[in-house]
Amino acid sequence: MSRYWSELARGLSPYVPGEQPRIPGLVKLNTNESPFGPSPMAIEAVRLAAADTLRLYPDPQSTHLREVLAEYHGVAPEQVFVGNGSDEVLAHAFAGLLKQPKPVLFPDVTYSFYPVYCRLLGIDHETVPLDGEMRVCIADYLDRGGSIIIANPNAPTGIALSRAEVEHLVSERADAPVVIDEAYVDFGADSAIPLIRDHPNLLVVQTLSKSRALAGLRVGYAIGDQVLIEGLTRVKDSFNSYPLGRPAQAGAIAAIQDEAYFQQKRSIIIGNRESLTAALIQLGFDVLPSSANFVFVRHPSHTGQALSAALRERAVLVRHFSGARVSDFIRITIGSKVELDRLTEALAEFLASPM
Amino acid sequence: MSRYWSELARGLSPYVPGEQPRIPGLVKLNTNESPFGPSPMAIEAVRLAAADTLRLYPDPQSTHLREVLAEYHGVAPEQVFVGNGSDEVLAHAFAGLLKQPKPVLFPDVTYSFYPVYCRLLGIDHETVPLDGEMRVCIADYLDRGGSIIIANPNAPTGIALSRAEVEHLVSERADAPVVIDEAYVDFGADSAIPLIRDHPNLLVVQTLSKSRALAGLRVGYAIGDQVLIEGLTRVKDSFNSYPLGRPAQAGAIAAIQDEAYFQQKRSIIIGNRESLTAALIQLGFDVLPSSANFVFVRHPSHTGQALSAALRERAVLVRHFSGARVSDFIRITIGSKVELDRLTEALAEFLASPM
Repeated sequence: MSRYWSELARGLSPYVPGEQPRIPGLVKLNTNESPFGPSPMAIEAVRLAAADTLRLYPDPQSTHLREVLAEYHGVAPEQVFVGNGSDEVLAHAFAGLLKQPKPVLFPDVTYSFYPVYCRLLGIDHETVPLDGEMRVCIADYLDRGGSIIIANPNAPTGIALSRAEVEHLVSERADAPVVIDEAYVDFGADSAIPLIRDHPNLLVVQTLSKSRALAGLRVGYAIGDQVLIEGLTRVKDSFNSYPLGRPAQAGAIAAIQDEAYFQQKRSIIIGNRESLTAALIQLGFDVLPSSANFVFVRHPSHTGQALSAALRERAVLVRHFSGARVSDFIRITIGSKVELDRLTEALAEFLASPM
Repeated sequence: MSRYWSELARGLSPYVPGEQPRIPGLVKLNTNESPFGPSPMAIEAVRLAAADTLRLYPDPQSTHLREVLAEYHGVAPEQVFVGNGSDEVLAHAFAGLLKQPKPVLFPDVTYSFYPVYCRLLGIDHETVPLDGEMRVCIADYLDRGGSIIIANPNAPTGIALSRAEVEHLVSERADAPVVIDEAYVDFGADSAIPLIRDHPNLLVVQTLSKSRALAGLRVGYAIGDQVLIEGLTRVKDSFNSYPLGRPAQAGAIAAIQDEAYFQQKRSIIIGNRESLTAALIQLGFDVLPSSANFVFVRHPSHTGQALSAALRERAVLVRHFSGARVSDFIRITIGSKVELDRLTEALAEFLASPM
């Protein structure tokens, strides 16, 4: 700690992202990346952006990208906000919308960045427990004040709410901004985007890091009523005018436009998830019903920490969280068939002779 | 305004960046971009980053880039912080360092983003007037409390402080964090980086957008005592774990490594500045002594607004600011020789028959 730090810096508890080790031959199933590369059209677009024009600032409003996203989702460009990964979009949503007089509400088990934003931005929060089956219960959010953020599907559980449940929430809580964080929605949940037309309090956040396989490019976005988007834009333009560089804008546009590639790859990932789920149940695991590109699983005989360590020894990286309700579990990203075979073999070996 | 905006969002006065119009044939001298493309090595590095590996998150710590910057500046990697353009680096410096109990101090005429950060982050500020020649007077910052940020060379004046003046400031004000924003330092001022060894309160911020011609890639950085950098990292990891994508990290590394290209292009820009200064004086302009890649000039017979409008009609874009002490001036980016000839011809034409 330093006498030159602000009081704010002293009080922070930063988020800890999953490891990005550089170990050859490692099966990396810890940060929910896609096992497939991005669309070849996206790669080509980034390649073409590598040019003398990099000397020029990018469009600060990312107009073309927002137009393409708007067309894709059937909304107006004024209803689209983009940022440097959905993490930045979420940060601006906390500052511009969720920071309200009453504490913001989110599940006790969810994306662990939410309380970190709260600390940074001076926002009180209250966590709402998942039920015994690790599900979000909308009823628990209805008769209390405060803005709301819910990941759907939730992380790290992978369990999704139906669109009807989300609609019930945003209707009943029309008094407050509600953010639905749909980082994983493309792997089997229903997006709440169709609801924004009738619900000016709803902001839906998505990312190109998962289903579009562009984690390395840093592009996320939000869709909501034009006035909500204006609020986010005010925050963004008070923080960083140009969050998306030229390669990021170009690659994101091309990725959204390559619908065939997107559909093909996400189908394979969903298929791999179902095969993996069956294989893990076979090995005695309890597997939460996932609508994401990961599964959250536990074994009756071994702690999450032991499973994670055993896999690591076998050059397979998964994510283990130490929180109260989740420490029995490990979160496994849905990789390629080859990677998932490596994982199940490693688990089978460990379970046959644990050490 | 919306009932769903936070109180914070309602109170913001966002920064307005220079225009990025898409007018064919326009001579664009309004946002201090380089007239030359970036190093061919940087372009090639971005091109190579356009690959399947975009599916993976980038290194959240930008370790290799920080190592390359550290070697370049003769410091340790732990003394280097990187961000999504120097605007993001500055935002984190305001939050993590400059937000102190007393108001932060900066010149009355300077980068207009500083008060915007203050509003966003709930920081009081006091402005310190430039002297009659539009110079920063270090003496005015010595006997008052509060953290300090000074752009050196200052913008939009282009006037630089000597390293001895900066050293005097950081020594005398060892009680407070001092940020020196060196966005334009490579065009003729002395960097304060050698002072960081003896001054744990000094943070120096630089960018790859100007002298490295990578405005379209979004990379900035800060150099300072390791403990200051830790403070910034705490803020960054509470906001966005992965601010720099893979193309940005790769391109920035290559740009820093291509010293020959950098030296060649900045020499040409400095030479062009001196030629332009002479030509403008010839046309009757008052030209502030610039150490940057722009000149800040006024004409005894015409307002800044009139000059800016006349140039715009002739397809030459410069920047005009409306503030009290600067509205007589226009800021002209040092472009290529061809661009600057277009500019001086347009000015000569206007001055010969103003309309």
